[in-house]
Amino acid sequence: MITVISCASSANLGPGYDSASIALNAFHEILDAEFSHDNGSVKITVMGKEGSRLTGTPQEAVAEAILHDFGSEEHIKLVSRGNIPWGSGVGSSGACSVATVLALKDLLSLNLSMESMINYASIGEYTVTGTAHLDNVIASLVGGLVIIESLNPPIWHKLSIHPDLKLAVINIHIEMAEKTKMCRAVVPEMIKLGSAISNARNLAMLILGLKTYDPEMIKAGMNDAIVEPARSAIYPFYPKLKEKLLAHGAMGVALSGAGPSVLCVLGEDQPLDKIRIAAHEILDLNKIPFEVIESGVCGGAVVAR
Amino acid sequence: MITVISCASSANLGPGYDSASIALNAFHEILDAEFSHDNGSVKITVMGKEGSRLTGTPQEAVAEAILHDFGSEEHIKLVSRGNIPWGSGVGSSGACSVATVLALKDLLSLNLSMESMINYASIGEYTVTGTAHLDNVIASLVGGLVIIESLNPPIWHKLSIHPDLKLAVINIHIEMAEKTKMCRAVVPEMIKLGSAISNARNLAMLILGLKTYDPEMIKAGMNDAIVEPARSAIYPFYPKLKEKLLAHGAMGVALSGAGPSVLCVLGEDQPLDKIRIAAHEILDLNKIPFEVIESGVCGGAVVAR
Repeated sequence: MITVISCASSANLGPGYDSASIALNAFHEILDAEFSHDNGSVKITVMGKEGSRLTGTPQEAVAEAILHDFGSEEHIKLVSRGNIPWGSGVGSSGACSVATVLALKDLLSLNLSMESMINYASIGEYTVTGTAHLDNVIASLVGGLVIIESLNPPIWHKLSIHPDLKLAVINIHIEMAEKTKMCRAVVPEMIKLGSAISNARNLAMLILGLKTYDPEMIKAGMNDAIVEPARSAIYPFYPKLKEKLLAHGAMGVALSGAGPSVLCVLGEDQPLDKIRIAAHEILDLNKIPFEVIESGVCGGAVVAR
Repeated sequence: MITVISCASSANLGPGYDSASIALNAFHEILDAEFSHDNGSVKITVMGKEGSRLTGTPQEAVAEAILHDFGSEEHIKLVSRGNIPWGSGVGSSGACSVATVLALKDLLSLNLSMESMINYASIGEYTVTGTAHLDNVIASLVGGLVIIESLNPPIWHKLSIHPDLKLAVINIHIEMAEKTKMCRAVVPEMIKLGSAISNARNLAMLILGLKTYDPEMIKAGMNDAIVEPARSAIYPFYPKLKEKLLAHGAMGVALSGAGPSVLCVLGEDQPLDKIRIAAHEILDLNKIPFEVIESGVCGGAVVAR
């Protein structure tokens, strides 16, 4: 039996819609995989606390696609023990899909290119969300902060963030059916030139600020003129939460992916207590349960033996 | 008498429309300034080779605004000896305006804030082009590579580019009346989401690539999905010229500001000969005269005594 570990991720980071993502070690998918003699080509057991919420299993879809494409008649047993919250905007399906690709690659000794691994993982993403979020998939697979240059073929640049920066995820518990679909539907197809200019300079400042530890650039850069304003109708608490978090010392605040979770960038010495206080002030008022979790940047998915 | 020297600049850099600019020491405005007893509050003599083309003088407009605002009854004599080509897209009016602000500040011992200097310089810009290009003004004034966070109030971040990078300007000689106005008119007000996403990730990659010397990021980043495609109707030779320059070893190519000049990013050891060959192949075919000039990054405007 092998065990694969892959991380959650935050996509978008504010101005980086469909182009920037960061791998978070706050949450992991832990996938045990082995050959079996059970019926059916793939048997998946989801044991993760949060995993049980899931209706579709990306692991199954990915594993079956790989077995099919390589003409394998093996039976595979997968046990998912992840703790990534589903539907929270931290790339659970991407992480689960990546873990499955790595598990099958290892078990079947497949020689899969990076592009091929990403494409197989996107099958799992598509099964769950109806969209292949390559930003989440690539961040989970390769780790770090990634800028996606191209989706097809997948081309990306992996960066590090400055070691004195700290991240915190506010994991917000709102049950929403078809969340991703709804969150994409509100994003306008045509936008004002001014918004495009804002997002370009903001993403440039944010990435540079994260790499070099520049609080001013992070603060100015982690603002989205296109997607977050459109999603405020879905998350009416968000603008006030962001304002409060910034007032309590967060350098930058963004919806994590399609939300509702929120990603905060903090200085090394900034205590999480103030972030918790700020979150309580806004989210308690809205009767929304949450927890605040510190996160490092994950180095990429690994096979453990 | 004092002499002020301020540099030309390239704005936009491809995806950085209205938000990124770089100060170029390839061309300078050199402005001699002294008190005089001539008639009229400001007397300006333009001696620069290229300056004679200019109909409006930004220097005069800026100097008169400052004298007026500070209630000064001094008479000022200005001699402009710059070599910045007008109407070429390298920020001539910005550089001339900045030089004038510095000259008047020094002569009259004024305590002008950075914001105030920028605002006075924008008067000169507006006089010549009908638009205040603060990206050009700020780059000329403070030097380096600047990201403009906000135009009003002016907020910017000054960066350096990696010392092993080299810049070349292809100064293209096309006489065009009302060029800036025309070049802004073709820029669409509403754009596709996909173009905004491209420009955001491209500007982020470009700035990071210029700072860290990453040829792949520079190449991928120095591409504009919004403004340059719209301006190809005005500069039909440009797409082929860019293609040829990249094929001859340029890491990145962009229209400088509103063009027609073109800015190339090169590695330290890349000879300019190949850039010249590429430019000849395309521009000779179109019977357009030009010269290729190497440029360093300027450190900002200075008063010399």
